[in-house]
Amino acid sequence: MQHEIERKFLVANDAWRAGADAGHRLRQAYLAETGQVAIRVRVVDGSSAVLTIKSAAPGVSREEYEYPIPPSDADALIELGGGSVLDKTRFRVPHGGRTWEVDVYSGENESLVVAEVEIEDAAARVEPPPWVGREVTDDPRYYAASLAKRPYRLWSDPDVRRGA
Amino acid sequence: MQHEIERKFLVANDAWRAGADAGHRLRQAYLAETGQVAIRVRVVDGSSAVLTIKSAAPGVSREEYEYPIPPSDADALIELGGGSVLDKTRFRVPHGGRTWEVDVYSGENESLVVAEVEIEDAAARVEPPPWVGREVTDDPRYYAASLAKRPYRLWSDPDVRRGA
Repeated sequence: MQHEIERKFLVANDAWRAGADAGHRLRQAYLAETGQVAIRVRVVDGSSAVLTIKSAAPGVSREEYEYPIPPSDADALIELGGGSVLDKTRFRVPHGGRTWEVDVYSGENESLVVAEVEIEDAAARVEPPPWVGREVTDDPRYYAASLAKRPYRLWSDPDVRRGA
Repeated sequence: MQHEIERKFLVANDAWRAGADAGHRLRQAYLAETGQVAIRVRVVDGSSAVLTIKSAAPGVSREEYEYPIPPSDADALIELGGGSVLDKTRFRVPHGGRTWEVDVYSGENESLVVAEVEIEDAAARVEPPPWVGREVTDDPRYYAASLAKRPYRLWSDPDVRRGA
């Protein structure tokens, strides 16, 4: 078990690309979500896959259990689950002694770009890079499970679309 | 992936015990159930554990994906899921060239005993042992997921309780 603690921000511009790695394509879907847990299948670069169970408790800190599974199982499970599939490319960007992850969504969530950073405890100091905008850690619309059900392109709030 | 095809019967008497192995204690709970999938955590004899994802399609044949997980994860996941826990001891009993599994429930499902046999295809011939009674393959009340939510001791139908 890992205890996942992270903060999430909208990305305001493309300056992060200068320090980013080549990125990994992630294709993921939620098999189930209850009031207690969310169960996710993720395929990385089409060549490896992981089954993840996260506690559904909102906010910064969540329990997380991850198990590698065969990619062919992952494809079948995504099909079986019958839910929406999220497509994004995840880049790693070092900043301020931490590794930030920038998720560039495609498909139904095209034009959404968010940055996440994992921290050691909820009180840890984070120095946001100059290319991030508004923090959305506690905004449930940006939970991946929410984006699968209600993708970004269906949102109407122009403040949100400005991303800052 | 396995394709699980099985038939399930009520057990009418104790004659099966003569041919049974020592049995294994199973403790299991459902993390989630949707219209598409059921996700189960099972601890075997307190010393090993498995995460199973089954297609929710009713009837004899179901897709099934199984992944071993650390028992300590299993305990935490059962706790996290917040659902009911099923306790049973499973015995293997050879009969007619097949291995039958007899599940003796305890806890909330005390006094329920069912026998299952896995078959190669839905049309395969099964010779029911003399110690089984009525077939309940298609009765959703006997699905393990149902027993977790509505245990046997809460049932009121006396025909069912007679087990034959």
